[in-house]
Amino acid sequence: MIRLQPIARDCRLFIPQAAVLYHALPVSYPITARVFSTSSSPLRKDGAPSTYDLEASRRNLSNASSVAKESKNAQNETSLNNGGKGVYSPTPIKDAREYFERAGIPGMDLQWSPRGIRGKDYRGKSTETSAATLRTFCHCELCRNKANGQRTFPESAIDPNIRIASVEALPGGLRINFASEERRLDKEGTHTSYWPWRRLLAAVKHHVFRGNPPSEARIRLRTKVSYWDAAMLEKKIASIDYSRFKEYDGKWDAIMQLCHLGIVIVKNVPLKEESVSAVAERIGPVRETFYGRTFNVKAKPNPDNVAYTAESLGLHQDLLYLHSPPKIQILHCMENTCEGGLSLFSDGERAATALLANLGVDHPLMKALMERKVPYQYYTSGRNYYQARRVIECSAGQLKRVYWSPPFVGDSTRCDMDFTAEWIRAARVFQDMIDAEDAVFKLRLEPGDCVLFDNMRVMHGRTAFDSGTGSRWLRGAYISHEDFVSVASAIPMAILRKFSDQYSTDAAIGKGNALPKSFIEDLHKAVQRHGFGAVNN
Amino acid sequence: MIRLQPIARDCRLFIPQAAVLYHALPVSYPITARVFSTSSSPLRKDGAPSTYDLEASRRNLSNASSVAKESKNAQNETSLNNGGKGVYSPTPIKDAREYFERAGIPGMDLQWSPRGIRGKDYRGKSTETSAATLRTFCHCELCRNKANGQRTFPESAIDPNIRIASVEALPGGLRINFASEERRLDKEGTHTSYWPWRRLLAAVKHHVFRGNPPSEARIRLRTKVSYWDAAMLEKKIASIDYSRFKEYDGKWDAIMQLCHLGIVIVKNVPLKEESVSAVAERIGPVRETFYGRTFNVKAKPNPDNVAYTAESLGLHQDLLYLHSPPKIQILHCMENTCEGGLSLFSDGERAATALLANLGVDHPLMKALMERKVPYQYYTSGRNYYQARRVIECSAGQLKRVYWSPPFVGDSTRCDMDFTAEWIRAARVFQDMIDAEDAVFKLRLEPGDCVLFDNMRVMHGRTAFDSGTGSRWLRGAYISHEDFVSVASAIPMAILRKFSDQYSTDAAIGKGNALPKSFIEDLHKAVQRHGFGAVNN
Repeated sequence: MIRLQPIARDCRLFIPQAAVLYHALPVSYPITARVFSTSSSPLRKDGAPSTYDLEASRRNLSNASSVAKESKNAQNETSLNNGGKGVYSPTPIKDAREYFERAGIPGMDLQWSPRGIRGKDYRGKSTETSAATLRTFCHCELCRNKANGQRTFPESAIDPNIRIASVEALPGGLRINFASEERRLDKEGTHTSYWPWRRLLAAVKHHVFRGNPPSEARIRLRTKVSYWDAAMLEKKIASIDYSRFKEYDGKWDAIMQLCHLGIVIVKNVPLKEESVSAVAERIGPVRETFYGRTFNVKAKPNPDNVAYTAESLGLHQDLLYLHSPPKIQILHCMENTCEGGLSLFSDGERAATALLANLGVDHPLMKALMERKVPYQYYTSGRNYYQARRVIECSAGQLKRVYWSPPFVGDSTRCDMDFTAEWIRAARVFQDMIDAEDAVFKLRLEPGDCVLFDNMRVMHGRTAFDSGTGSRWLRGAYISHEDFVSVASAIPMAILRKFSDQYSTDAAIGKGNALPKSFIEDLHKAVQRHGFGAVNN
Repeated sequence: MIRLQPIARDCRLFIPQAAVLYHALPVSYPITARVFSTSSSPLRKDGAPSTYDLEASRRNLSNASSVAKESKNAQNETSLNNGGKGVYSPTPIKDAREYFERAGIPGMDLQWSPRGIRGKDYRGKSTETSAATLRTFCHCELCRNKANGQRTFPESAIDPNIRIASVEALPGGLRINFASEERRLDKEGTHTSYWPWRRLLAAVKHHVFRGNPPSEARIRLRTKVSYWDAAMLEKKIASIDYSRFKEYDGKWDAIMQLCHLGIVIVKNVPLKEESVSAVAERIGPVRETFYGRTFNVKAKPNPDNVAYTAESLGLHQDLLYLHSPPKIQILHCMENTCEGGLSLFSDGERAATALLANLGVDHPLMKALMERKVPYQYYTSGRNYYQARRVIECSAGQLKRVYWSPPFVGDSTRCDMDFTAEWIRAARVFQDMIDAEDAVFKLRLEPGDCVLFDNMRVMHGRTAFDSGTGSRWLRGAYISHEDFVSVASAIPMAILRKFSDQYSTDAAIGKGNALPKSFIEDLHKAVQRHGFGAVNN
C-alpha cells in the first residue's frame, strides 16, 4: 500500500477544503472509477434479490401513505414541503451501527422518518439527509445508464415531496423504499434504492455523494513533487524509449514523471511529421491553438512569433495570453545540425516556492510579484488574446501557480504607475533565480528525441543558433490542463507504489524544503542586489 | 458611423469596469489591430525625423544627469527610487494643451520632471505617470518587433531608476528622451520614445496603455443581441450558402449571426467527412476534446454518451464538465432518412434574462438557481472531468452566464441537503420555460445542412428517431470560447454597420426587454405551478 506521507510545507500546492475529507478515508478506497461500480446496483450483493420486488414496493407504498398521513397530522404541511427542515419523529434503524462496524467503518446510529435519514455519531453530533436528496443520487440501474454511467432522468423529474416509505438494514447497506404521489419519474409511485454503508455514511455525515473532483493538488499528494536544479535534473531525468512509451507501463511512467519532475524525455520517436501528435494522444487529446494542431519550430521569414527566429529565447512559459494555457508541451526534434540551439529548462515552481518560504508573503518584493498583474497579449494577424497574470499566485500562503513569460508581455489595460520601478526590481530577482547558471538544465535535442514538460511549472527557452551551419526543426504540440489532470487522476496504484518506494528513500530531492543552502544564499544575495535590503525571515 | 445605442437593461451582459472607459472614446477609434500600428513608431509622422538622433540623445543624457543631480539634492533618494512618489518640481510642457486640442482631444496641461509626467485636467485633477512606466510601454521599432509586435526586451531590462532627460511637444505627440546610468537595455544610456497625444492622455490620465482586452461583453455592445422564441427565430434565422460562407462577407455574416442570434445555418456543405472541420476553421481553431477533433453523432451499440443512441435528448448544453466548455458547436448533417430526429433549439439566455427581470435576485426561486451548484461530471473510460455550476450566474444583477445540462448532472461532492426539494421546484420552472412549445425551434436537418450555434447560450436537443427506418448521421466540431471571442473582436466595421442599420429598425426583437406578454404570463404561471407563490415584481 502506498504511503501517503505528509508533504513538505513549501512543496504543497493549494488543496481545496473537501480534499481533507477524502484523504481521511483509507487510501485503498478506490480513487478512480468508483462512481458507477456495480456494487451500488440495487441489492446485487449481500444475498439480496437482484430484481425489484414490486409486491413489496406496493406494500411499502401503502405503509408510506399511512406513515405520511400520520406525519402530516403530527407536523404541519410546510415542514414536509420544506424537504427536511423542522422537527420530525424518527424511528431508529435496527442494526445500523452493528453493520457499519462489521464493514470496518466508524459508523453512526441511524433514524429514519418519511422526510429523510438522520445520523448521530459517537460524539452525539446529528446530521441528516432528505428523502429527495437520497432519491436524487440513487445509483440503481434504472437511474443510471449502465454503459456510460449517465443519469437516466433530469433531477427535475423527482418529486420534491417524495417520502421514505420504509428502510431495511442489510449487511452490505441500507435499502430505502420511496413513495410519491407524483408519478412523473417512478410510474408506480415507488422506488427502491440501495446504499452501501460507506456511501450512506458520506451522504448523511458529510453530505458528499462522490469523492473529490479531479485536481492537480490531489494528484500531487499521490505522485509527490521534486524540485530540481540543473545538477539534480541531470541525475533524475528519465529517458523512456518510444517502444516502451507505447506500452502500458511506459505511458504511465511518463505521466508519473511529468507530475513529479515536470519533465521527461521519450527517445527514438520516429522522424515523421505525425509523431508529435501520436506522442500527445498517448496521454490526452491534442490542445489545438491558432498556431495549428501541431506546430513547427524553425527559423522563418516574417515570423509571427519570436520562437520562429534563430534568436535566443529567454526562459518563459507558452501561451499565457490564453484563458487556460496548455499544461503539457511536447517538442519533437526532427533535425538539429545547427551550431547552438540548446534547449533550456528551469523549474519555476522551485524559485517561487523558495521565495515564498524565505521571504514570506508580506515582503515588499513578494507583494510586487503577487500583486502586479502582468499583461500577456497576442494581437497579430487578426487574433486577439489577452490575460493579465501575477507572477506568483498563492492561496492561504501556499503556492498555487507561477506565470513567467517576459517575451510575451504586452501593454497593460490599467497599471499602477508608481509601482513600475518596484516591480522591475522584483522581476529582476525572479529572473536572476530562474536564469541562474545552476538552475538552468541544458539539453541538446537530437533527432528522434521528444521532450515533454509541464508548461505550468517549467520555463523553457533556447540559446541562439546559427542557421547558416545547418538546420534546426522541432515539431510541437500541447495537451490542456484539464485533459492532463483527467488522465493523471487515474495513475494506477501499481505505478504509484513503484515510484513511492523509489522517492521515499530519496531524501535529497524528495522534499521541497530541502533546497540546497547555496541556493538560499543566492536568493538572499539577489534580493539585496536589487535593493530590497536585508531579509527578515 | 455605427450607432451605439444604449442597450436594453436585461439583454446586457456583465461588462467589466474598464469597458466603460474604452467606450467613452469615439467609436471611430480603431478597435482592432491598434496596438502595433506604425503611427507609434518614433517620429515617423508629423514631420519628425525617422531615425534616432544619437547626438541629441547624448546631449539629453548629460542634461538629464545634471537635472537628476539637482533633483537628488532637492529630494531624498528614497522618493526617487520609489519611482514617482513624493513631491518633485515640475516644468510645464509648452504647447501641450494646444496640440491636444488641435488633435480633437479634450486634453490636459502637462508638466514633466526627471521622474515622470504629470497632467492636470480641466477640473484641476492631477494624475501622473513615472518615467519607468513610460519607458516600459515604449512602442518604438527598437522596443517592438515589427513583424509580430512582440516586445524585444524583458521588462526587467529597464532601469527602475530611469529618468526623463527632456521632452518636446510636437504636433502629433510628445517626444520623451530618457537617460539612465544603467546600460542594460539602452547601450548609450539613452532612449527616445514618441507618444501620440491620444495614447499619452490615456497613459497619464487613466493609466491605460492599450484598449480593453477582447471580451464577449464588448463584442455584444457592438453586435447587439436578440433573444428569440420559435416563431421569431423562424423569421430571423439566416441561411448562408457554403459558397458565400467561403467568401469574406459570408464568413463575417455567419460570425455576426452567431453573436446576435446565437445560431446560423450554412447550406450545401459538401458531404465529406472533413467538411465540419473546414467550416470550423473558417472561424477559428478546432476545439478538440476527448471525443475527438471532430465527432460523429449516430446511434451505436454501448454508447459512451447518451447522444450516441436513438433516444430523444432533452435540451442541454454540451460539455459543461469541462473547465471552459466549447463556445460554438457545429453540426453537419451527412445523412438523415430516419423518421424523427428533429433538431431542437431553445434560447437559454432569454429564459434566464426573463426570470431575472421579472423575479429579481432575491426571489427564493432565483436563489435556488443562482446558489445551488449543479455537479456536471464525466467519469467513463478512464476520463475524469467535473465542474459544479450554477444555472444562472449573475454579476451586479446582470446575467453573466447560463448553464443547463440535465442529462449530464452527476453526483455532488458536497450538497446542501435541505435544499434539494426547493432546487427541484426551481429547476422545474426553468425546464418548463426552456421546453415550452413556443420556445423550442424545431429544425429538420437535411444532408448538406450545417448548423452553428452558441453552446453557451442556446440549448440543443433532438427528438427520438427510429433507426429502423433509415440512417441519421451528423458530424460535429467545436470552437472554444476564447478563440471565438478572439475572432469576433475583429468583426469589420462594414459588417457591423450593415447589421446595425438592419437591427435598429427591428424593434420587435431588437431589445431583450420586449419579450412577448404571453411569455411573461407563462413565466408567472410556471412559478406559481411549482409552488413559489405569487410573484411580487
